[in-house]
Amino acid sequence: MPGLEHYLDQNAARFESELSELLRIPSISAIGEHRADIEKAADWVLAQFRSLGFRAEKIATPGNPLVYAESPPVAGAPTVLVYGHYDVQPVDPLDEWITSPFEPTRRGDNLYARGATDDKGQMFTHIKSAEAWLKIEGRLPVNLKYLIEGEEEVSSGNLFPFIERERQKLACDVAVISDSSQFAPGRPAITYGLRGIAYYELRLTGPKQDLHSGTFGGAVTNPARVLCGLMAALVDEQGRIQVPSFYDDVVPLTVDERKQFAALEFDEAAFMRQIGVAGVSGEAGYTTLERRWARPTCDINGLTSGYQGEGAKTVLPARASAKFSFRLVPNQDPKKISAALDPYLRKMLPQGITMELIDFHGAPGVVVPLDSPFMAAAVAAIERSFGKKPVFMREGGSIPIVTTFRQQLRVDTLLLGWGLDDDNAHSPNEKFNMLDFHRGIKASAFLWDELAKLHRPK
Amino acid sequence: MPGLEHYLDQNAARFESELSELLRIPSISAIGEHRADIEKAADWVLAQFRSLGFRAEKIATPGNPLVYAESPPVAGAPTVLVYGHYDVQPVDPLDEWITSPFEPTRRGDNLYARGATDDKGQMFTHIKSAEAWLKIEGRLPVNLKYLIEGEEEVSSGNLFPFIERERQKLACDVAVISDSSQFAPGRPAITYGLRGIAYYELRLTGPKQDLHSGTFGGAVTNPARVLCGLMAALVDEQGRIQVPSFYDDVVPLTVDERKQFAALEFDEAAFMRQIGVAGVSGEAGYTTLERRWARPTCDINGLTSGYQGEGAKTVLPARASAKFSFRLVPNQDPKKISAALDPYLRKMLPQGITMELIDFHGAPGVVVPLDSPFMAAAVAAIERSFGKKPVFMREGGSIPIVTTFRQQLRVDTLLLGWGLDDDNAHSPNEKFNMLDFHRGIKASAFLWDELAKLHRPK
Repeated sequence: MPGLEHYLDQNAARFESELSELLRIPSISAIGEHRADIEKAADWVLAQFRSLGFRAEKIATPGNPLVYAESPPVAGAPTVLVYGHYDVQPVDPLDEWITSPFEPTRRGDNLYARGATDDKGQMFTHIKSAEAWLKIEGRLPVNLKYLIEGEEEVSSGNLFPFIERERQKLACDVAVISDSSQFAPGRPAITYGLRGIAYYELRLTGPKQDLHSGTFGGAVTNPARVLCGLMAALVDEQGRIQVPSFYDDVVPLTVDERKQFAALEFDEAAFMRQIGVAGVSGEAGYTTLERRWARPTCDINGLTSGYQGEGAKTVLPARASAKFSFRLVPNQDPKKISAALDPYLRKMLPQGITMELIDFHGAPGVVVPLDSPFMAAAVAAIERSFGKKPVFMREGGSIPIVTTFRQQLRVDTLLLGWGLDDDNAHSPNEKFNMLDFHRGIKASAFLWDELAKLHRPK
Repeated sequence: MPGLEHYLDQNAARFESELSELLRIPSISAIGEHRADIEKAADWVLAQFRSLGFRAEKIATPGNPLVYAESPPVAGAPTVLVYGHYDVQPVDPLDEWITSPFEPTRRGDNLYARGATDDKGQMFTHIKSAEAWLKIEGRLPVNLKYLIEGEEEVSSGNLFPFIERERQKLACDVAVISDSSQFAPGRPAITYGLRGIAYYELRLTGPKQDLHSGTFGGAVTNPARVLCGLMAALVDEQGRIQVPSFYDDVVPLTVDERKQFAALEFDEAAFMRQIGVAGVSGEAGYTTLERRWARPTCDINGLTSGYQGEGAKTVLPARASAKFSFRLVPNQDPKKISAALDPYLRKMLPQGITMELIDFHGAPGVVVPLDSPFMAAAVAAIERSFGKKPVFMREGGSIPIVTTFRQQLRVDTLLLGWGLDDDNAHSPNEKFNMLDFHRGIKASAFLWDELAKLHRPK
């Protein structure tokens, strides 16, 4: 399809500059004062669809708006639902950014900005691929539906009810999401397994106010110390999670999967250099890839208590809290985890301390079948664009929407990752390689073609 | 000594009115704009000493001036160093004061003003007692030296170097401080033990930057989790500190001390109401008073890691830190604690985590021997004035000047508290009971007498 490819090459610079426009909008969903930026980002995405002549709408929710769009109908062609999100993570610690998070900056092949890879840049590839088809072919070979949300980074609380309500509107043959990574630079990947998540905040309260640690220390239970004890009791020395019945429903890795994982050129030394550690550790008996992709785990995401300023203050804090989360593997149910966790923690609580356990959100893990025709189409499209067959991998993160699409729309999701592991999603200096951005657009354009073939008479 | 007591009774009203003059000076050391008031208060104290015919000087420091005075020499008599401070705490929240903090107001037996009990009122008792001796006896029975500072509420940064430099000038047999409380109304107390402190910050570093907890969780050692483990390992289930050899030098409570503590009317239910907890806990085998006053303890003073904002962020933090401190009891050496602590923590450190242990400051605990002749003199003086033997109590906090007097001047300090626990030192509506003010002056006058006896030929 030389016309299409030519168009994409000719317009590459414009695509980058349009992406930069979107990246300049600080649409941080976790921080209330960015509400206006959220609207601005939603409007920007809406305008993109309208400029393509799509039927597009901004759908208000009790939280941040959804953007929904449909391409002009193509009779007899399959329908593809593209999901993405226009909201981004907070940017702290701000002083670790080399350039401002909302002033996209090109250094080498990379564009640096919050949201570059997660998910504004990756999501945008599926809009530009549609534009190319319309400009060059005058039509799309498939029916495209787009669902772009603004609350992915704060757990999509309004998306899931919408999908449940609008099953008919969203009806499709397959879903496509690009919000993940390649296996390695130049090794494109299709992610077929995702971990789930169960995220909590534990808040402990001791005395009614901060006390002088000299006058009261030793006689008053210190909530910060209790918090550390409870957090330490979540995982044992072998990296095994101690919440009762936590592993009961875990689907173990098959022998084949463990072989496949082992066959991947995973460079553990490079991995350690990438994240800057002298050693890795985790659940005993599993490799690093198995621990990241296919084993449940527990991480403390934040700790807060007492005096956090410079120097020393002899305070016995009134309160202490921790944010922590479990990554779940297929078949584990976050609701069952919550039900076991609360009494497990409460039982260890000493006199004089009260606890509140906030259950933020949960999502089960998921695995997509490797042998479907949709998967074959995605493999072909990626090979045409990247020049290489994709690697099948699993991913340690959670994309709860994949489970929802399976449950509500009864479709599989193709997780096509254009990003890289070291893109710093959720960290300072987030980036997206612009070569991958353009290869992603091309792969997306080929994907519409490959999917269309599935319904063509042979 | 009827003449002396008569004089004190006759002049009681004048003493209160003089104290009110001093209380009207807003000598707040924490607020720079009160610098002129600081000078005014120092000058006022200086004038008091000069009116008694003492050799008195105002000594400039890089901060607020010290007032130093010496009574006319009495050959063969012991020398007593009285320490106090003329600076006061800030007054906010101002709208919670019933009457203006710098307009001393009598309500019932109490005089309300900032500084009434801490420390202008208590310090002043030791000046008026000297006046009575001079007016009635024409001479003092002891040599008195006074060191009255203006930076106690801002950590006495210029006092300690002065004491080190002027050891000769300050040479004495015993020191006296009234800047503490009675055990309960009508139960005068001598505080004979103070805890020391060793304060640290532990900083752990894992990956070079915050990571996505989905992508990396399980394979990368989480510094927040390690921090919680290390903090939890400081103290066991029984409240025993686990740092090796921590208890080696602890001077245990004597059977007598435990009996004395147990005999005090300590209302544990009221204590729990005061701090707002449903239960207390601490080192097994000790009472609440023992835990507060005479047992070493460990408190976490602050925790910092990862995401501390609203909602959920799936971050695997790069860093985690804790501020924590041990309260030490007599004979424990903060330097030995530090030397044992560092390897204890380091040994538990897993691969992929580095640690830095910051040693903020240490001060040993101190106990004034109960069987010294000075202590006996103080007991007798208090009993003569208050009509009751004082309670011996200890205090969980640290008063660094007591340690400094011990180390630099090699003397014990008599901590004679005329105040009450509910005097609102550091809070709105600070007060001092004027009955206790006058009993304090009388006890001080008797103290000079009792101390003089120590050097009199039998």
